[in-house]
Amino acid sequence: MNRINKVVLVGGTHGNEFTGAYLIKKFEQYPHLIQRDSFETLTFFGNPKAFEVARRYIDKDLNRCFKIQDLENPTLSTYEEIRAKDINEMLGGKGKSPVDIILDLHSTTSNMGLSILLDNFLHPFNLQLAAHLSLTHPEVKVCWAPLIESRCLQSISEFGFAIEVGAVAQAVLNAELFQKTEKLVETILDYLEAYNQGSISQTNSTLTLYEYVKDIDYPRNDLGEIQAMIHPQLQFRDYEPLNPGDPMFLTFDGKEIVYEGESTVYPIFINEAAYYEKGIAMGLTEKRHVTV
Amino acid sequence: MNRINKVVLVGGTHGNEFTGAYLIKKFEQYPHLIQRDSFETLTFFGNPKAFEVARRYIDKDLNRCFKIQDLENPTLSTYEEIRAKDINEMLGGKGKSPVDIILDLHSTTSNMGLSILLDNFLHPFNLQLAAHLSLTHPEVKVCWAPLIESRCLQSISEFGFAIEVGAVAQAVLNAELFQKTEKLVETILDYLEAYNQGSISQTNSTLTLYEYVKDIDYPRNDLGEIQAMIHPQLQFRDYEPLNPGDPMFLTFDGKEIVYEGESTVYPIFINEAAYYEKGIAMGLTEKRHVTV
Repeated sequence: MNRINKVVLVGGTHGNEFTGAYLIKKFEQYPHLIQRDSFETLTFFGNPKAFEVARRYIDKDLNRCFKIQDLENPTLSTYEEIRAKDINEMLGGKGKSPVDIILDLHSTTSNMGLSILLDNFLHPFNLQLAAHLSLTHPEVKVCWAPLIESRCLQSISEFGFAIEVGAVAQAVLNAELFQKTEKLVETILDYLEAYNQGSISQTNSTLTLYEYVKDIDYPRNDLGEIQAMIHPQLQFRDYEPLNPGDPMFLTFDGKEIVYEGESTVYPIFINEAAYYEKGIAMGLTEKRHVTV
Repeated sequence: MNRINKVVLVGGTHGNEFTGAYLIKKFEQYPHLIQRDSFETLTFFGNPKAFEVARRYIDKDLNRCFKIQDLENPTLSTYEEIRAKDINEMLGGKGKSPVDIILDLHSTTSNMGLSILLDNFLHPFNLQLAAHLSLTHPEVKVCWAPLIESRCLQSISEFGFAIEVGAVAQAVLNAELFQKTEKLVETILDYLEAYNQGSISQTNSTLTLYEYVKDIDYPRNDLGEIQAMIHPQLQFRDYEPLNPGDPMFLTFDGKEIVYEGESTVYPIFINEAAYYEKGIAMGLTEKRHVTV
């Protein structure tokens, strides 16, 4: 990428993730906060209908609707499937959008702190930005899900990524996380401005990357009903090492279920409310150190 | 009351409050846990349709549908209004139910710890039970909302009350809170058993009661949109003193809004997710010491 011309900040892709939704409202009220000299910054509200009723979605998770084959499938016609097609058109079309970076602001009931979520191809530009954010905001963690094709909104743009902040309950504003997220967005915009001005020094630095390996579901019975909870020793311990033999779940009658993998992993999205229905109790990652 | 004959434990009155919902499922699987010799304990799932979709309610908050005039109003016909009438009939009818105590298990995104919520008339029996729980579970706080008539499910029975546990996100199981709530329910049932056996010693003890005074809404604009968040210094500080001049809200552009009352109050239900739509940022209580 030679130069960034257009950035779109998105919130409310999930209607009950208030941090991003209200940040977008704030940026719309005070546009000077996100304006920079060398590129255009626009805001966009992902799922206003779901936000009105403080739910993640109306019919279907909007942030799983952005695969090209789905965007091109005329038979998909739920509210979110149509909304995804509309968004894709408004933003210029996946793979050919004039938007360089879509930054989608999410929140989670997991203790993810301030997380950068990269999917798809790991472009050096994103890695350098992530390394910069890790340095300037030591709280920031960087995750990478090496997918064949992202289903997420930010994948409309080539360098799009998501921010996940937590732990915060659904449909709740947490002032501290709101302010931290706002500062992180400011830092990102400042970085992009410096990038355009050629004032980013290309120093080799090491970035810690949490690479997604697989999901773990809750133990369930034949009817699909959950039979155990996240173990108290694992609750809120996102990004901390989970070793073979460490407690993972606690059944309702008090039995411990341990992690039976062969090596240490680093769970993320532990006990995310929206993932119960997706069959995900947590995602396991491996920790990598990459030089960027 | 001479003797307790029938107790009903309820969970899932709000479909996204998983602590109570899954506790009821557990008690249904292991009924011996709630059986006592001298009275009958039944379980009841409040809003299974809302639980299926992990939402508080389908059409209307079920736990606001139990005023006698509403139960008797044939024109009220949303899912929850009909469900309330059905529940009322199943449990024998408000004011004449053979159920002595309905114990309704709720959870909240507010940091309410383990709370006992009493509404309506303060019967000495409830006060003595609450005092016992405060002694045996020092974490327990007791709130009283002196209403003319309760709209809540537990008001079908004369001595019904609710338990609120938190902080926990909606649609999430927190193992630690699950276990604490289960222990509290056990203690309550053991107390009722001892009461029936005449082995409760009537010692005068002092009970701290948080008496509900009024609700405070979020600052809003003319369109009803929220303009401020709970101040970080107040977040998760349920039951702690809020003095005149203490910060209460933080606007999106960073201005503090302070508490302008004339005396110290004790906020509860601070930042409860389900209360945004009800226009409640917190409830203010006054602290009383009563001898029971």
